[in-house]
Amino acid sequence: MSTTTEKSKPTAQTISPAEMLEHWQGHRGLTRRVIEAFPDDAFFTYTIGGMRPFVEMVMEMMAIGAPALREIVTGEQIHLREHFDHGNSKARILEVWDQQTEEINEFFNQIPLERFQETVTLFGQFTFPVWSQIAYAIDNEIHHRGQAYVYLRSLGIAPPLFYER
Amino acid sequence: MSTTTEKSKPTAQTISPAEMLEHWQGHRGLTRRVIEAFPDDAFFTYTIGGMRPFVEMVMEMMAIGAPALREIVTGEQIHLREHFDHGNSKARILEVWDQQTEEINEFFNQIPLERFQETVTLFGQFTFPVWSQIAYAIDNEIHHRGQAYVYLRSLGIAPPLFYER
Repeated sequence: MSTTTEKSKPTAQTISPAEMLEHWQGHRGLTRRVIEAFPDDAFFTYTIGGMRPFVEMVMEMMAIGAPALREIVTGEQIHLREHFDHGNSKARILEVWDQQTEEINEFFNQIPLERFQETVTLFGQFTFPVWSQIAYAIDNEIHHRGQAYVYLRSLGIAPPLFYER
Repeated sequence: MSTTTEKSKPTAQTISPAEMLEHWQGHRGLTRRVIEAFPDDAFFTYTIGGMRPFVEMVMEMMAIGAPALREIVTGEQIHLREHFDHGNSKARILEVWDQQTEEINEFFNQIPLERFQETVTLFGQFTFPVWSQIAYAIDNEIHHRGQAYVYLRSLGIAPPLFYER
């Protein structure tokens, strides 16, 4: 009886999987609004200091997040593909972005709590615990989106507020 | 006996408090190297698109992270103070940065696992769970540090690698 009671008590968590997913999707929603804030042309071409245009950074994000979760859940090795045929269409990028929003929800919810501490190798080269792989995807998105804020400001465009998710 | 066994088993965690602290301090180490990479003058004056010089962003980070943890642990209300007298000295900024590295370790380790889900109001205005307050401090640091990468690149300086922590 005592054991049953222990087991049925909710386990104290720093962050629950559901909270981690919501936190990430909140960031993804903000990144989507930053993509939308770019003039079509600037999204594909504007750079500062020899850096990549924002479209290239967005394709990097799209090569990491959803594919990483797919590999974690299915175990099939995925190649890091940082480019796809977008035809210089922001609408096409946003379409794939939205598909990935659904994929991320679908795959994330298939990761049991016990697996977040499991060390996995993704894309045949990055070996870290599952939680750290997810944190990397989120952190990398924040990092490059922050750079897009500078691009937008230097274009005279006010970016969406960082703390509105 | 059975209950004792249950209790002594490590609880499954998405991220343990120790891992969250190490992750944050890894980011802080990178931010420190980005501060160091700036020429002294540019750190205090260089801007793009009407944004703040990096020193202002760094003082914002310093107003949030360690003070937030202090308020979480001690319960005494702290005012958000985004400026201090640095005398245009990067060495002074780094000195306070390093003091905060120690404070963050000290306070973080006084937050029991059960408190990460507790909702707290910080600086008299931001009401979120403890984990979310900490995530905000980390995310905000990554966001502004990403902007500093653009400043450095446009100054012709190669920033430290994002994934080296």
